Amino acid sequence: MQDLINDIADTMANAERRGKVADYIPELGHVDPQQFAISLATVDGKVYSAGCATTPFSIQSISKVFTLTIALGQMGDSLWSKVGREPSGDPFNSIVQLEHESGKPRNPFINAGAIAVVDAIMMGHEPKETLGEILSFVRYIADDDSIYFDHAVAASEMAHLDRNASLAHFMKAFGRLDHDVDKVLGTYFHQCAIAMSCEQLAHAGLFLASDGINKPSGIRVVAPQRARRINSLMMMCGHYDASGEFAFRVGLPGKSGVGGGILAIAPGYGSIAVWSPGLDSYGNSLLGTQALEMFVQRTGWSVFGHY
Amino acid sequence: MQDLINDIADTMANAERRGKVADYIPELGHVDPQQFAISLATVDGKVYSAGCATTPFSIQSISKVFTLTIALGQMGDSLWSKVGREPSGDPFNSIVQLEHESGKPRNPFINAGAIAVVDAIMMGHEPKETLGEILSFVRYIADDDSIYFDHAVAASEMAHLDRNASLAHFMKAFGRLDHDVDKVLGTYFHQCAIAMSCEQLAHAGLFLASDGINKPSGIRVVAPQRARRINSLMMMCGHYDASGEFAFRVGLPGKSGVGGGILAIAPGYGSIAVWSPGLDSYGNSLLGTQALEMFVQRTGWSVFGHY
Amino acid sequence: MQDLINDIADTMANAERRGKVADYIPELGHVDPQQFAISLATVDGKVYSAGCATTPFSIQSISKVFTLTIALGQMGDSLWSKVGREPSGDPFNSIVQLEHESGKPRNPFINAGAIAVVDAIMMGHEPKETLGEILSFVRYIADDDSIYFDHAVAASEMAHLDRNASLAHFMKAFGRLDHDVDKVLGTYFHQCAIAMSCEQLAHAGLFLASDGINKPSGIRVVAPQRARRINSLMMMCGHYDASGEFAFRVGLPGKSGVGGGILAIAPGYGSIAVWSPGLDSYGNSLLGTQALEMFVQRTGWSVFGHY
Amino acid sequence: MQDLINDIADTMANAERRGKVADYIPELGHVDPQQFAISLATVDGKVYSAGCATTPFSIQSISKVFTLTIALGQMGDSLWSKVGREPSGDPFNSIVQLEHESGKPRNPFINAGAIAVVDAIMMGHEPKETLGEILSFVRYIADDDSIYFDHAVAASEMAHLDRNASLAHFMKAFGRLDHDVDKVLGTYFHQCAIAMSCEQLAHAGLFLASDGINKPSGIRVVAPQRARRINSLMMMCGHYDASGEFAFRVGLPGKSGVGGGILAIAPGYGSIAVWSPGLDSYGNSLLGTQALEMFVQRTGWSVFGHY
Repeated sequence: MQDLINDIADTMANAERRGKVADYIPELGHVDPQQFAISLATVDGKVYSAGCATTPFSIQSISKVFTLTIALGQMGDSLWSKVGREPSGDPFNSIVQLEHESGKPRNPFINAGAIAVVDAIMMGHEPKETLGEILSFVRYIADDDSIYFDHAVAASEMAHLDRNASLAHFMKAFGRLDHDVDKVLGTYFHQCAIAMSCEQLAHAGLFLASDGINKPSGIRVVAPQRARRINSLMMMCGHYDASGEFAFRVGLPGKSGVGGGILAIAPGYGSIAVWSPGLDSYGNSLLGTQALEMFVQRTGWSVFGHY
Repeated sequence: MQDLINDIADTMANAERRGKVADYIPELGHVDPQQFAISLATVDGKVYSAGCATTPFSIQSISKVFTLTIALGQMGDSLWSKVGREPSGDPFNSIVQLEHESGKPRNPFINAGAIAVVDAIMMGHEPKETLGEILSFVRYIADDDSIYFDHAVAASEMAHLDRNASLAHFMKAFGRLDHDVDKVLGTYFHQCAIAMSCEQLAHAGLFLASDGINKPSGIRVVAPQRARRINSLMMMCGHYDASGEFAFRVGLPGKSGVGGGILAIAPGYGSIAVWSPGLDSYGNSLLGTQALEMFVQRTGWSVFGHY
Repeated sequence: MQDLINDIADTMANAERRGKVADYIPELGHVDPQQFAISLATVDGKVYSAGCATTPFSIQSISKVFTLTIALGQMGDSLWSKVGREPSGDPFNSIVQLEHESGKPRNPFINAGAIAVVDAIMMGHEPKETLGEILSFVRYIADDDSIYFDHAVAASEMAHLDRNASLAHFMKAFGRLDHDVDKVLGTYFHQCAIAMSCEQLAHAGLFLASDGINKPSGIRVVAPQRARRINSLMMMCGHYDASGEFAFRVGLPGKSGVGGGILAIAPGYGSIAVWSPGLDSYGNSLLGTQALEMFVQRTGWSVFGHY
Repeated sequence: MQDLINDIADTMANAERRGKVADYIPELGHVDPQQFAISLATVDGKVYSAGCATTPFSIQSISKVFTLTIALGQMGDSLWSKVGREPSGDPFNSIVQLEHESGKPRNPFINAGAIAVVDAIMMGHEPKETLGEILSFVRYIADDDSIYFDHAVAASEMAHLDRNASLAHFMKAFGRLDHDVDKVLGTYFHQCAIAMSCEQLAHAGLFLASDGINKPSGIRVVAPQRARRINSLMMMCGHYDASGEFAFRVGLPGKSGVGGGILAIAPGYGSIAVWSPGLDSYGNSLLGTQALEMFVQRTGWSVFGHY
């Protein structure tokens, strides 16, 4: 397996087309596009890595998997009155669907949906408390207390908040948010600014590969059915309006972030984190997707195959 | 396993809410809503059935899985220039997306996409020849020459063709169809009017559970990667704008039809066909979905779990 | 006044940018783009013309004013249950609005609305009879029996009917059309293929400038309120999604056709017909619009001014 | 004329269906729905009033006519790079069109467009200065220094700003606003909270009935062409997605506000202000529209007729 991981990293190191680093958040625009990392954590406790797998990067929307998990833990199925669970067919920051459906976001992974999820887990608390809880949870499932918020990235996002502010105010106008828009957005931008390495991220995702149990520690994070359902949402909605493409090419539940990371889950096998900052036109990591496609072709771990 | 299948059939026999039989096609409106059938064909050659599993019903949109398979066999990936592979977020008969995207349907399972697929496989031939080829293929993968076109259903659909004619003419106006609209629609309606029983349908879907090999016969129908990709499309788009819901509740690639049938694939395990004519508000079988949900809860065969 | 008309014709004869002749109807694509004509018929019975004002051209969508007048004569306000009277904000052939509003067209001048109007005036008759009635009416208000259907243009449109067929079938699917789609479309395409000269057209429109009375003959065509309402519809919807632009620049109720003609009404003054085959990006005559803008700037006949 | 004005007021005083007072701005919700006022200012300097024509009410969106006039005075036609001039076909607070057209509002009278106009006239100044300029202009054209901002209404709107904040942030995200969203909204809400009586409003609108000259004083406010163009925008877009209906029934350029006022212009004749707080389903004054319809039927002052 280590050979395969090395092969993938070598192939990606030599790739000429590397995509375009997100620049609408200036702080993300400074990242070196030559970087690539991959890390696989298996359900039997092994870790295989290559590239700069211990370099922290901004996980951005991948954090939505973790806040969704927290929200389901707090509220259970009542969360679904606040946010749907269907692919939207629209880009991550689209507002058209919100107008057609009275301010209720289609799923928890488009921006509007993730903002609604953050609002749900605030439960009357201040942003600082909520952020403390989010960070604690991520550190816990990654078993690593060095994970941190990159405040420079959060500040950079706060300085370019308009598109997300538009979504939040729109939902607020329909009574879909309980807290102040400013507080919800502040919490949301910090959540997106969590910095993790591929090794930390693969570890953090492992509970989704094992029906809810974090295999190395043996601790149950969520019930089996919940783990499966989170995976289903990652499959259906994890790559916005390129979710179908990711399912077609990779065949694993996955969640991307504009920082260039992708977390993919191979149920029963392991959790794979990849990172390369250059994005394709849908905002998903170009080489990260190629790396996962190559990984699944060689391992056969597509959920759609008979492996 | 037979006990589980029997349990499911018993539960569904006693269900009070049975959904609403499709009545926009009058011929389908006459079907008795009390009927229920389930059939599981496993990759090791066993068959478990309960209910009226040998009663033929109109498979309707489930046929789109088979025409997609034929089209990919003929054209390979060039098919994707004619039709996309993303969930649309819209109902099965929506035309809004077509106008926004220059007449190219989002995926092969919405009506517009399936009509484009039929046009692709006609390749200059007459409807009769194309229909002959479709029927031969379905009989071949089901290993059953008694499968037939229900001409009364096809005629009933032809008499209520306007919504689909609108879709077809719209695509034609953008140069997306090569053949006459009337011929394409005639072929499409007959394809949808294929009548099969649950046992036949489960058998026909088995190649998708075995990386492309029809296990009982050992014959390869498609390459492994193609089988996985068809499954991914069923997962992402098989239930229209309720595809997310089906993934969330059932967790298997599946394709529904307004006749009340659903074909679901458990890769590595088997192919499950269910039938109950009453539909939910999205046009998917109400009890069929519940039966599959119960089946997966008891077997753990969700592709998102560690089974 | 004749001097002004001559000035306008001279200016337009020398214009370099002349727009693009419609080529989606091949028969229209052959027309010489160098042609220009203008004709003003005044309420006191004078006629001022310049350019090729006696050359017949295809009036296309301008015919929708006449079929609307016929339909209101037959049905009165019950017509408004079949078609709305709001600008749509969308191009002339858009289908998006139809899906959002259950197949009811926004107004009688977008294609879908005009098709619904034709269906309304058929009243169970065959296309031939309806077309006879339409032609009789146009000949009557223009006082000229030489006006005719250009069957070559109609045939050319029939051969490229898909976009309009899509609209018609969509409305039929919602029960919005009473007659066969083929018959309605056949009638519609012939109506659009009426050939008239600018002089004939200006004469035909005169009743709208005089509260419903065709001034030269003194015959009342419609009641005063109806004339005003037809003018209001021309103002609001007569140039599709460039109606606001026409109101802003010209300030008169007007109706354009892709043949390059425009009929404009100056209530209390007269009826102006212009023709130049080259179109702007919205499908309206480029020089025709400029000619009307120049005309109104010089006469002050904008309905929005104090003339 | 006074008899007609009295007749109208009497008819409306006895109307049973009076519409629904806007309650999404709580401060507006307290207004007594039994009130009705009408005032006509003619180009020859006469004033005819009935009902509570000296009672100030919140003019709300009618103020958009005045800020548009100011913006055109400052910027001329360059304003049209910031905002379009087409009817949108959507409700006043819709955001769908903004997403489809890169954040550029369709016209200056939908909320998004009016916010863009306010941003344009701020020109780097603080809200206080801009509001001072707006109020001075309105007092000047109404020749009445008692006109004021109703700060309670402005505060009430600020407390329910989310829908408009969503629009503003959306435009800001596309670089369409030069100033801080908070400052633009603060200015916008105060502008909408201008309180005027029907007599003051009719007086203020008079320059639009006289090709730009405020007749009583003889002072030119805008050039003739600009007056006509503002009228054209009122006709095409002044009643949101019911603009076609207003043109059809009334036939005058008009602008409504959710406070229940309507300003209508009869070019060459006069300016008519009506007020009745109850609204129809489009957000336009129910009795105000009926009053104007009655007025035009009796006077024949439709711009579409030969009066």
